Amino acid sequence: MPDTWRDIAARKQQERADRIPKEWRLPSAHKNGSNGNVLDVPRKCGLLTTQELSITEDYDATALVAALTSRRLSSVDITTAFCKRAAIAHQLTNCLTEIFFEEAIARAKALDEQFTKTGKPIGPLHGLPISLKDSFKVKGYDASIGAAGLCFKPAETNSALVDLLLAQGAVLYCKTNIPLTLAALDSHNNVFGRTLNPANRLLTAGGSSGGEGALVAMRGSLLGIGTDVGGSIRIPAMCNGLVGVKPSHGRVPYAGQEAGSRPGSSKLGIESTAGPIAWNVRDCELLLKAIGEAEPWVFDPDVVPQAWSQQPSLARTGSSSKASQPLRVGVMRTEGHSTPLPAIQQLMDDVARQLQSPALPSWNAIEIVDVDASILGPQCLKTFNGVISIDGANYWFDLLAETGEPLSPWLQSRLKRRAPKSLDQVRDLKAQITRLQTEASSIWKESGGYWLTSDSKANKGDRTLDIILCPVAPHPVAPIDRWNTTNYTSMFNLLDFPAGVLRVRDVSEADLTGELPQSPPLNGWDKINRELWTDVDRKVYLGSALSVQVVAPKLMDRKLVEAMGVLEKALRPLSLVNARGSRL
Amino acid sequence: MPDTWRDIAARKQQERADRIPKEWRLPSAHKNGSNGNVLDVPRKCGLLTTQELSITEDYDATALVAALTSRRLSSVDITTAFCKRAAIAHQLTNCLTEIFFEEAIARAKALDEQFTKTGKPIGPLHGLPISLKDSFKVKGYDASIGAAGLCFKPAETNSALVDLLLAQGAVLYCKTNIPLTLAALDSHNNVFGRTLNPANRLLTAGGSSGGEGALVAMRGSLLGIGTDVGGSIRIPAMCNGLVGVKPSHGRVPYAGQEAGSRPGSSKLGIESTAGPIAWNVRDCELLLKAIGEAEPWVFDPDVVPQAWSQQPSLARTGSSSKASQPLRVGVMRTEGHSTPLPAIQQLMDDVARQLQSPALPSWNAIEIVDVDASILGPQCLKTFNGVISIDGANYWFDLLAETGEPLSPWLQSRLKRRAPKSLDQVRDLKAQITRLQTEASSIWKESGGYWLTSDSKANKGDRTLDIILCPVAPHPVAPIDRWNTTNYTSMFNLLDFPAGVLRVRDVSEADLTGELPQSPPLNGWDKINRELWTDVDRKVYLGSALSVQVVAPKLMDRKLVEAMGVLEKALRPLSLVNARGSRL
Repeated sequence: MPDTWRDIAARKQQERADRIPKEWRLPSAHKNGSNGNVLDVPRKCGLLTTQELSITEDYDATALVAALTSRRLSSVDITTAFCKRAAIAHQLTNCLTEIFFEEAIARAKALDEQFTKTGKPIGPLHGLPISLKDSFKVKGYDASIGAAGLCFKPAETNSALVDLLLAQGAVLYCKTNIPLTLAALDSHNNVFGRTLNPANRLLTAGGSSGGEGALVAMRGSLLGIGTDVGGSIRIPAMCNGLVGVKPSHGRVPYAGQEAGSRPGSSKLGIESTAGPIAWNVRDCELLLKAIGEAEPWVFDPDVVPQAWSQQPSLARTGSSSKASQPLRVGVMRTEGHSTPLPAIQQLMDDVARQLQSPALPSWNAIEIVDVDASILGPQCLKTFNGVISIDGANYWFDLLAETGEPLSPWLQSRLKRRAPKSLDQVRDLKAQITRLQTEASSIWKESGGYWLTSDSKANKGDRTLDIILCPVAPHPVAPIDRWNTTNYTSMFNLLDFPAGVLRVRDVSEADLTGELPQSPPLNGWDKINRELWTDVDRKVYLGSALSVQVVAPKLMDRKLVEAMGVLEKALRPLSLVNARGSRL
Repeated sequence: MPDTWRDIAARKQQERADRIPKEWRLPSAHKNGSNGNVLDVPRKCGLLTTQELSITEDYDATALVAALTSRRLSSVDITTAFCKRAAIAHQLTNCLTEIFFEEAIARAKALDEQFTKTGKPIGPLHGLPISLKDSFKVKGYDASIGAAGLCFKPAETNSALVDLLLAQGAVLYCKTNIPLTLAALDSHNNVFGRTLNPANRLLTAGGSSGGEGALVAMRGSLLGIGTDVGGSIRIPAMCNGLVGVKPSHGRVPYAGQEAGSRPGSSKLGIESTAGPIAWNVRDCELLLKAIGEAEPWVFDPDVVPQAWSQQPSLARTGSSSKASQPLRVGVMRTEGHSTPLPAIQQLMDDVARQLQSPALPSWNAIEIVDVDASILGPQCLKTFNGVISIDGANYWFDLLAETGEPLSPWLQSRLKRRAPKSLDQVRDLKAQITRLQTEASSIWKESGGYWLTSDSKANKGDRTLDIILCPVAPHPVAPIDRWNTTNYTSMFNLLDFPAGVLRVRDVSEADLTGELPQSPPLNGWDKINRELWTDVDRKVYLGSALSVQVVAPKLMDRKLVEAMGVLEKALRPLSLVNARGSRL
């Protein structure tokens, strides 16, 4: 008789626990942090040396690479520090799945020796520890994505991106937790349990790359790689106050993932993409540039053969007329299906105002254009919901049945086994995607009909937007298992626009005073969204991150990241106004 | 009661005939040419003035554009000449479907006036007549693709590429014939009839862009645009001794075609692409560059935002080590499923020998590598056959049933109504495509296992191919309705490698003397292919074009076209050896 899910999960958890060296185990006195915030436990628990604290707190990934190549730090020192800190983070948030610290430190040693011998780094990520979402395959380790039926079946080959990262010098040391089915917004599964938000245990750590979000927030990793088919990088980035980038399809190798579906499925619906979660934009750029310059198309035939340096840049080179062109930012306040709660509306107002401040440091000028795409949002949602339910969840129900495994609590009321869609239905969905992508390309153009502040006389109506700013969600970071709508993020998966998340500031007392309008909710989702304002003690949101989403046209990934860098700087004053010290 | 197909076809043919001015009607004495070759009828029939003969024979498209912008010729003169010559070509080969000569000449006049007024061409195609396959939609005209059920339903919008071409200054004046279903290799349908090969009426003009092939061969157009999902640009290019380029998906806007399928279908299988048929490589480059520089991604969300000038180039710029790198050409003699007949084997030998000739004019060096991908060919064929039969031809059988229209003769034994494939089958096909694309990317690399002449010691095994040369088909231009296998072309649609066709030389008496091997045929297709050698009076092939196919890695369209330009020059001596004067 095959093992039941309980037996498998118990063995799997034991295996994971055994992979943490005894001397890195956290004294129980430190396990709860203060007021449910465990972010400062690594600093206080005494397990990390002064150097290890410095390595993990005084640098970002970019600075670590510089320290490595100038020999101020060795990869062994860096890798050991992050292995230890990841072990601590895990004991506080349950963020890890597969652990390979020993191999990581051995590889770091080999890289140090090679560097000493040759004087050359093997690539731009030489010696840098990088963490990965569990869905990536690393040879010799499970990619169980939290399903008992997939445990103890170690990968026989690496995912394409894993091969690429190793070739560029990265040190891989752990994989991170995800929700069962990869399609929930809170990272809980029956094998590994639930990942907690290190800043506030009442709030979600997000998903599906939630382990990555918690680990990076704890600085147990400075560069984590998640995947995103509906918000799974951007949502945990917001929940953990971090920066996350969901690339366009065709930029970052995705081949060879454990996708939780039968091979070929992504081609019937929409494609998930892999991208970074980090503390700042330049670390995201470090990763995306390293990938983009490593001929990523050789690793995955879906990747466009265009190096990062060949992608259109925001930098105004060439004609002088273009040199004085402002960064033109569309502000989209709602997707038309779930109206943002007062705190999010306030955030968008603050952001728009700040970007028009005359004293911006890093850019000639930022031009704000109000954009109303609320007619597209509900259509995107409808098509997206069709796309993600093509299989009728049969893959998952079959897999769970093998070991008698139940659904996670949140999924129990939401996921049902249904008949797969028919070929005709899938064809129609594909046609709808094309129609929506065609229509949405008009958002970028002044003449396209989506601009509220068109000024066609002065500008001949031929202006275009560089980026769009919009909410990540219609609500702040939600309590556990209460993140309900993904349309603010998933619409850009459907449209295949690259999109990133930037933390702007924390929720303040003042944010909580706003009231809902008297008008009835737009629909059932809007009603549930309002309950996050009316049926919750709003104080739970205090100090959690308020983030914005930055969106660029399809395949304009470099422009997106460059614009995020400009905005990160331009919006910094907002974060200083009401910093509450909840972050390091 | 609805019209029957016969009524509709009769009305449609009358409409078409009425659109040819009376004074351009060909005297019947000229309708048969000599020995079934009508290529010189336009010169001899007396309908064209000396200037019109000069415009249509002494220039290529590139030279016409130069003459236009330097005011040596007007667009009205050029357009009138090509309308007249297209009318003659049509009366000899039945190559046209929709005719809009009047509008074209009116547009040419407007363009001339604008040029006189502003001194500026409106784009790189200013004033140049361009012909289109019938599947393109031009507002106000049918895109019936030869099906009675689609006649007299004029398009309400232009295809995306039509809008782009108009914006770049092109003059559109006619559309060209195709086979019923777009999925036959001989351009016959019940509405418009069969297009004939102008050089030899016993041989096929090819399909599905067969009208385009015949029209361009007649110089009734110098730049025609076809579409290709299995060889539909390359096959008629070969049949008519022309140059044709099938781009990668994502380079040329394809949106808004009449595709002969339900919307969304191409997303379930593989994508057709649009590209040029012309007399030389530089005219193909003129078109593809004009499209690539016109922000084609604005017209179709599937197009990669990378201008032609931003695409990787063959030109060795940058480091000096690369400057001396030869053009590295893989020679693939068979796809492993249908063995090339002796004339094709001889052609490939001649080509490989010529490219290694020490006296090549235009390139430092060409390096030849023998490549054996015969293990992939049959797998590609199997998957391709699955992909093109997803719908079970139900769309077509339903459409034909509306008017009682029968299948074309060639299709009658080949196309059957079947149950559409299941979603699971389509998903598996998608997975197979990805697997084959991944595997095939190894062809380009010395280390990939496909090179027969690997020289890893001297070169560290890290060489890569620029292009691959292979046959267009395992046989010469086939007799009417006898082109049977498309795997030499369709495998590169499946793999999404851009590919073009170059005429090398004509079939000579010596080519016909080769004999088949004693070994049994590889399979049923191979057997049918051999019958083109054994069951045909081979003399029918004399003077027909022998062409090679040039293939580049995915999205390396600019490199492909540049390499085709190098090869066109390098292979020219072969065409002079046994020129038979069958071409102008």
